[in-house]
Amino acid sequence: MFLGRVSGTVVSTIHHPFYGARRLLLVDKIHPDGKPTGDYVIAIDTVDSGAGETVLVIDEGDSSRQVLADPSGPVRAVIGGVVGAVEVSR
Amino acid sequence: MFLGRVSGTVVSTIHHPFYGARRLLLVDKIHPDGKPTGDYVIAIDTVDSGAGETVLVIDEGDSSRQVLADPSGPVRAVIGGVVGAVEVSR
Amino acid sequence: MFLGRVSGTVVSTIHHPFYGARRLLLVDKIHPDGKPTGDYVIAIDTVDSGAGETVLVIDEGDSSRQVLADPSGPVRAVIGGVVGAVEVSR
Amino acid sequence: MFLGRVSGTVVSTIHHPFYGARRLLLVDKIHPDGKPTGDYVIAIDTVDSGAGETVLVIDEGDSSRQVLADPSGPVRAVIGGVVGAVEVSR
Amino acid sequence: MFLGRVSGTVVSTIHHPFYGARRLLLVDKIHPDGKPTGDYVIAIDTVDSGAGETVLVIDEGDSSRQVLADPSGPVRAVIGGVVGAVEVSR
Repeated sequence: MFLGRVSGTVVSTIHHPFYGARRLLLVDKIHPDGKPTGDYVIAIDTVDSGAGETVLVIDEGDSSRQVLADPSGPVRAVIGGVVGAVEVSR
Repeated sequence: MFLGRVSGTVVSTIHHPFYGARRLLLVDKIHPDGKPTGDYVIAIDTVDSGAGETVLVIDEGDSSRQVLADPSGPVRAVIGGVVGAVEVSR
Repeated sequence: MFLGRVSGTVVSTIHHPFYGARRLLLVDKIHPDGKPTGDYVIAIDTVDSGAGETVLVIDEGDSSRQVLADPSGPVRAVIGGVVGAVEVSR
Repeated sequence: MFLGRVSGTVVSTIHHPFYGARRLLLVDKIHPDGKPTGDYVIAIDTVDSGAGETVLVIDEGDSSRQVLADPSGPVRAVIGGVVGAVEVSR
Repeated sequence: MFLGRVSGTVVSTIHHPFYGARRLLLVDKIHPDGKPTGDYVIAIDTVDSGAGETVLVIDEGDSSRQVLADPSGPVRAVIGGVVGAVEVSR
């Protein structure tokens, strides 16, 4: 899992039926201090997160299918939580 | 999942039977603003996408087997949708 | 698996129920000599590890579900042990 | 999946029984234009490919076990086909 | 799979029971010519390999569980063989 910041949405016109009713979010992978790493992922929203929010990204297929309660879902990443605070002890 | 742009096709002569009737596409991984990341993947087309189109790449084996409805398919990446718009709120 | 150093905690407000009673740790990936690699992961603590400790990170979903004894847990990384010594023979 | 170029073989003396009768190939990961990416993988040959040939690498455990028809094989990458042509439309 | 060179051992004090009787090795990922890539992995030894030896690393959970004959083992990487020769045809 890693920290992400929601930066937008992806609208897919022609797609697999699974993606018909799902909200596809663009999520920038960030460092613990909030700076972007330069990488991103497309994840399915499950916690009603919005642009600019810091989120917990779960980047694994089986985990994503569990969160979405769909054992046959073609999906690799979901947003598992909205992050309220990151406490760094360095 | 990530955004890709279809850049070509791969023709395999000698191959596993699974690849006989599949369309193998070359897909450049792109950033949300459309610039190439420098990485690419070979994915199986499932939405009749063509060169130059922006697509949703699902880069996981179990997801790919679900999309292709072939539980024993030796495949790791499929194109899950054609992307109509990427709305970035930064 | 790789070596990590616990650098903080992540507090998630709205989240999947699985994360309600779990301790989410920020873990920096380190080289065998202790220097940070620049990468990090969020992992679930299972050995009561604290900030500054060197730990063994198991970065795989099925392994994590085994360690947590929860076959349906949406989780990709756990801390599998506290590292007492790294003996490099170079 | 990605494109590779066979660059050699690996001979393992002491090994898991699974590797006794398998041909282990060194495969350089290449860009679609044929240039090496600098990365490589060790994959099991399944299409009798030889040094210098461009091949389709399937880098996933379950896919590899399907191709080798061995559900318990400890293997992560196989060569799934010999590539006859890469048609880039850029 | 990739080539590694055993560079040391990891001693874990507090850990998951699975790691009680296992030998945890530090393994540097190397290029086919023997030069280090700068990356490393912690893998469980299965072929009695020692410091300085070139080994075949199998970096996948299900493969590792097969090699260790423990379907519930929380493990992602094992050493699957000692490499006797790498024949590069470039």
